[in-house]
Amino acid sequence: MKYCSSCGSSVTYKIPEGDNRSRHVCDQCGTIHYQNPKIIVGSIPIWENRILLCRRAIEPRKGFWTLPAGFLENRETVEEGAIRETKEEANAEINILGLQSVYSIPHISQIYMFFLANLVNGKFSVSSESEEIKLFSIEEIPWEELAFTSVSFALRKYVDSSVKNSLHLGNTRDRKNLPKES
Amino acid sequence: MKYCSSCGSSVTYKIPEGDNRSRHVCDQCGTIHYQNPKIIVGSIPIWENRILLCRRAIEPRKGFWTLPAGFLENRETVEEGAIRETKEEANAEINILGLQSVYSIPHISQIYMFFLANLVNGKFSVSSESEEIKLFSIEEIPWEELAFTSVSFALRKYVDSSVKNSLHLGNTRDRKNLPKES
Repeated sequence: MKYCSSCGSSVTYKIPEGDNRSRHVCDQCGTIHYQNPKIIVGSIPIWENRILLCRRAIEPRKGFWTLPAGFLENRETVEEGAIRETKEEANAEINILGLQSVYSIPHISQIYMFFLANLVNGKFSVSSESEEIKLFSIEEIPWEELAFTSVSFALRKYVDSSVKNSLHLGNTRDRKNLPKES
Repeated sequence: MKYCSSCGSSVTYKIPEGDNRSRHVCDQCGTIHYQNPKIIVGSIPIWENRILLCRRAIEPRKGFWTLPAGFLENRETVEEGAIRETKEEANAEINILGLQSVYSIPHISQIYMFFLANLVNGKFSVSSESEEIKLFSIEEIPWEELAFTSVSFALRKYVDSSVKNSLHLGNTRDRKNLPKES
């Protein structure tokens, strides 16, 4: 950030009065431009004990498999965002069962939230964001071709957990402690 | 937002190519300025079956009672943010037990996340953000003087729930369905 989005003047990266960390502060109008982590919402869509995964048609991690997920938009609840993203990426309708995992990626300031869900009618199809969509049994999960650690974390917890919709908290700082993949 | 934070030119609010909703797009360099909900993290600090609440020393809702909470900062995990905010607002150390509630406020694009926690040593003190801090038994909770619906929701679920650390999802769209306060 180089310029103030309110008045167009230049900004200085400094600690505002009464704060304890540096922010972009406008030299002219004094506006403090706070920057905060973004939320990525998605789902673990289940149909007849199989998990829906999407092969990414776009960067980053094009060609790798992911759960349907994307940035939460302004004026959405987290559940609405997860439903919308599943619709956009997989043309699939879901019923949300519960929040399954919250996974922090502090070095890029992202928080993933995955909801366990049922596919409503077993229907799905490719989209501009997903070049292939498939249902995987637990044994078929392509562990080596997953796009993101947040997805590996959610799927690993799904596989390991006897209570399928219990909540799991994870983050990349603990990556080395993640359960080994099969 | 009126000006591009990258190059200082004016921005136009329009739907970028390949997108389906309006964004602020720079007329000069083409940068798309995405705006997304912010996360507020906090805790429900418990000491000897009583709940720590803070009377707000600052606007909004100055003078009303709240759980310690604040905006998640870049490069933090959600747990780290909750611990930091509890320290800043109540000078209290906590051990996190689990995520207790995720509460969406879509009309102002905020997502609250409250963690159930134990006070480490029963110590706390006022801060620049909290003019009074007190431990309340369930019977003493000042329902009419709580600062935010997110706090009412978390406390109501704490009171109602037999499983104290199960996760609850709520949002202001369902406000009329909130359990009646005692």
